[in-house]
Amino acid sequence: MLRTHTCGELRLEHVNQEVTLCGWVQRVRDKGGMIWLDLRDRYGITQLLFEEGKSSAALLESTRTLGREFVVAAKGQVIERLAKNDKLPTGEVEIRVSELTVLNPAKLPPFLIEDDTDGGDDIRMKYRYLDLRRNAVRRNLELRHQVARHTRAYLDELHFIEVETPVLIKSTPEGARDFVVPSRMNPGEFYALPQSPQTFKQLLMVSGFDRYYQIVKCFRDEDLRADRQPEFTQIDCEMSFVTQEDVLNTFEGLIRHLFQKVKNLELPEVPRMTYADAMKRYGSDKPDIRFGMEFVELKGQDRDLTTGQNFGVFDSAELVVGICAKGCADYTRKQLDELTDWVKRPQIGAKGLIYVRYNADGTLKSSVDKFYGEEELRAWASAMDAQPGDLMLLISGPTDKARKQLNELRLEMGTRLGLRKPDDYRVLWVVDFPLLEYGEDEHNPGQGRWFAMHHPFTSPKPEDVPLLDQDLGSVRANAYDLVINGVEVGGGSVRIFQRELQQKMFETLGFTPEEAQAQFGFLLNAFEFGAPPHAGIAFGFDRLCSLFGGVDSIRDFIAFPKNNSGRDVMIDSPSSLADQQLEELSIRLAVKG
Amino acid sequence: MLRTHTCGELRLEHVNQEVTLCGWVQRVRDKGGMIWLDLRDRYGITQLLFEEGKSSAALLESTRTLGREFVVAAKGQVIERLAKNDKLPTGEVEIRVSELTVLNPAKLPPFLIEDDTDGGDDIRMKYRYLDLRRNAVRRNLELRHQVARHTRAYLDELHFIEVETPVLIKSTPEGARDFVVPSRMNPGEFYALPQSPQTFKQLLMVSGFDRYYQIVKCFRDEDLRADRQPEFTQIDCEMSFVTQEDVLNTFEGLIRHLFQKVKNLELPEVPRMTYADAMKRYGSDKPDIRFGMEFVELKGQDRDLTTGQNFGVFDSAELVVGICAKGCADYTRKQLDELTDWVKRPQIGAKGLIYVRYNADGTLKSSVDKFYGEEELRAWASAMDAQPGDLMLLISGPTDKARKQLNELRLEMGTRLGLRKPDDYRVLWVVDFPLLEYGEDEHNPGQGRWFAMHHPFTSPKPEDVPLLDQDLGSVRANAYDLVINGVEVGGGSVRIFQRELQQKMFETLGFTPEEAQAQFGFLLNAFEFGAPPHAGIAFGFDRLCSLFGGVDSIRDFIAFPKNNSGRDVMIDSPSSLADQQLEELSIRLAVKG
Repeated sequence: MLRTHTCGELRLEHVNQEVTLCGWVQRVRDKGGMIWLDLRDRYGITQLLFEEGKSSAALLESTRTLGREFVVAAKGQVIERLAKNDKLPTGEVEIRVSELTVLNPAKLPPFLIEDDTDGGDDIRMKYRYLDLRRNAVRRNLELRHQVARHTRAYLDELHFIEVETPVLIKSTPEGARDFVVPSRMNPGEFYALPQSPQTFKQLLMVSGFDRYYQIVKCFRDEDLRADRQPEFTQIDCEMSFVTQEDVLNTFEGLIRHLFQKVKNLELPEVPRMTYADAMKRYGSDKPDIRFGMEFVELKGQDRDLTTGQNFGVFDSAELVVGICAKGCADYTRKQLDELTDWVKRPQIGAKGLIYVRYNADGTLKSSVDKFYGEEELRAWASAMDAQPGDLMLLISGPTDKARKQLNELRLEMGTRLGLRKPDDYRVLWVVDFPLLEYGEDEHNPGQGRWFAMHHPFTSPKPEDVPLLDQDLGSVRANAYDLVINGVEVGGGSVRIFQRELQQKMFETLGFTPEEAQAQFGFLLNAFEFGAPPHAGIAFGFDRLCSLFGGVDSIRDFIAFPKNNSGRDVMIDSPSSLADQQLEELSIRLAVKG
Repeated sequence: MLRTHTCGELRLEHVNQEVTLCGWVQRVRDKGGMIWLDLRDRYGITQLLFEEGKSSAALLESTRTLGREFVVAAKGQVIERLAKNDKLPTGEVEIRVSELTVLNPAKLPPFLIEDDTDGGDDIRMKYRYLDLRRNAVRRNLELRHQVARHTRAYLDELHFIEVETPVLIKSTPEGARDFVVPSRMNPGEFYALPQSPQTFKQLLMVSGFDRYYQIVKCFRDEDLRADRQPEFTQIDCEMSFVTQEDVLNTFEGLIRHLFQKVKNLELPEVPRMTYADAMKRYGSDKPDIRFGMEFVELKGQDRDLTTGQNFGVFDSAELVVGICAKGCADYTRKQLDELTDWVKRPQIGAKGLIYVRYNADGTLKSSVDKFYGEEELRAWASAMDAQPGDLMLLISGPTDKARKQLNELRLEMGTRLGLRKPDDYRVLWVVDFPLLEYGEDEHNPGQGRWFAMHHPFTSPKPEDVPLLDQDLGSVRANAYDLVINGVEVGGGSVRIFQRELQQKMFETLGFTPEEAQAQFGFLLNAFEFGAPPHAGIAFGFDRLCSLFGGVDSIRDFIAFPKNNSGRDVMIDSPSSLADQQLEELSIRLAVKG
């Protein structure tokens, strides 16, 4: 080895030893005939000492030529530091250097390699290999490795087998967002990259593998809003001969194991909430339960505390629903106007926001005083469990829309009130998702059709199967999501394992029998040769890591991420191909205008 | 859970317990009022018992309708077997079944789900999910999981970090065999799938990750001769601040660890051989050292025992080289003719084969008796260390060709003599590979150019750097291969880490400075910002698993392999795309006639 120790391991017990360290020059201080050099590697920082009189003139001179990020090897003796630095694990010692070798010089980096860097996003992406030198970014990837390690340890212990499924698979029309790969050996034909190994893991269950997992790259060619990446990683799992209850218990175990090993946190039992409940109480299928501020319906299926006072907006609304912001009664008119503007932005789309102040002196003041007297407002306050000092915020409209809008407002208020702390982890199972949802058919604009809410392989609840012929919208699935702090971290379902039911499902989704056979014939056939009952789940690994890291962006937990246009600006990809290469692949460009 | 136990875990201690098992019907015997049913799952086989008089008539009747591979749940009491089966871990007990539920019926499988199946390759590939039910195939994938597990455990212990590198990268003209992926968001541009994460792992070293590994899918779009797959898996590793010696020691450690954990074998120290030596002694850079039969040069650089006897073939040959097949002096003329035909086949291409029988009675008999007398033959025998009873086989010609041909013959003789036992593992490091080799330029047919023998990032030996300006063919690289039983299992090198040397290397390989910058500018730039000395290695994971499994084909160790045309016949991929999909990707087909 070029070194005897790393830059993170020397302690008092090493004093007097002759050592060689290798690393990067983090900082040089040159003062009063002394030079101190902070040498950095992945494992830490160690101080090197050069001293006029004690170090040779040549050594001092060459040390003075070193710049930031030079790569050097330094040989010398470990000595006890006079001024100890208790912020560094190596802070009790330093190296009196006798020999210094420059292994590689470095140009001045385009931004500071420090926790607080001066580099913007773009420059750090272009020089990602330098950004990765920063402690924060390196620690993210170390954490990622730990999450993977402990995931494998947990699943191995439970006899799950990691099986690699293919990356070059078959394109499906359902998967309009497949990345495709032309085949040189099969001109005119294409592979697709998997959006998930779903059908393969189900085939492994048919094969009797019983318990499968894989930490696996998946691909989706879609517009990269906010925080998505064209390639992402899943913890993908499947089990045979189990019920939904078994899957929830097994993977609640995984999450608890990870919190314990990675965050040193003992998680309480994970509560469960039905989809219907989550929508009613939080207006979201991934509620953030770090804080309360639950929805209260003033007008809805169960009661009506608003109709009949000539307020047309509420009278005509399907739902009037509110939240109570504790201690916010002193919001100024300006603050309330700003909040109203906030919910009226196109992203949220509310028509307006009604407020009721429950003043500290016990009086009530609302933006609808014209229509509602004290009696009504008190009834609302009572329904919403509001206390003097609180602010009630109400939204009305069609049920789904009003809930969605109030969900946004609730999250915003939670953020403004500091109720969404990154290190406060609240985990939740959301269960009993609807099997299907109605939406626009992208192939026939203006026409609607039913879509699988999870995917076409999800089983309806056995007791809801008869509804498949009566009321598609009310069929519930044995499907479940794991939600942490309002983020969907994982999701899965009990699968269909009978050919007949699977075929009926494809039919419901608008497949002709021929289309179903052409696309998923292998799976339908497999179900005829002895398919066991099975169920599974997949976790977004990048997302899980970012949650553990307390950071919002998954990009910070990916070594070489792509930008919002799907470009890797460091290697400048994607890029054009040579004509000869296109020809060999039997394709031609057809770029418009 | 639908079961209380697996089919592999019940023992005498469970007798009298009420259990429920789930699994597949392996076999049913119905005789004299008793029915025995072998129930199979991944963990084993358990015998179920049904008995007239003791079991209900309905239960007996329904059991008699079960076919092979039906999926059932059986509830009953564990009882001690009268006739124990010591071949089964569960063979001391059986279940007296009280309740049987058919979870899913099964059509008759197209081949037997047994160790000795009656299914041919094609049918087993089409129904791969059924083939995977067979013990042998399942065990291969279980072994694969174990190899991965122990690899990770070893590397984690040594502070290697697993980092995921991107799958959607940049196409390079060097990599004419890249799979490419059109980008919807960047019309006319393409990603490539990595043939290896080489440049990314080097960037991670520049980032200071110090020790990296990844068990990672790689891709190569080339003709799938023999035993290659378009997607394959590597154990990919890189280390900073190390010498070649450190890499060899670290990964010799990995291999020893794997042999110990997976095969329960203590490997002796791994010998090392230079490339030059391997070529001279075995005619191969991946010699199979399970057996001797080393090359002996009768005419070569060191001596000449053949010239001057008017045998034109030898007189004009650059090299006369032989092997001594112990105990084969009694080969018949017919056998020798057959062997001669064997080396003359186009795949080998030898002009002929000379033999010398050292008969048991001490006399010598050769196919060149016309030219060489007893004295010469005795000198040859002495040089070749032949004993009475041995057969000497000689090939002559240009050095490289003759060695290559004799290598094939040596391996063939080793096989014929039973000297290449799959469970006899001989591991070898081959070191000091040439940096460059001369070959035809595929872009300018008929013209030659220098190619990197390993890849363009491999460092020349420091003492050979001056030769880069003098004699390219004699520059040795700090490159090394790990060879097990004649199979190259891994290879790597010390890398170039200085921009200038890397640029010189690209120049030597025929890149213009502009081409080098366009393709590998990011790496050249990275080397300017403080790149540490680094080195690495990659192992063919599929190959390693097949070696541990004692099986030649890597296909048996891949869950869903592709056939020789790159097709997955189970899912019928690759396949054609809809016009709309092509349009969205801004490409058009250009399939010739």
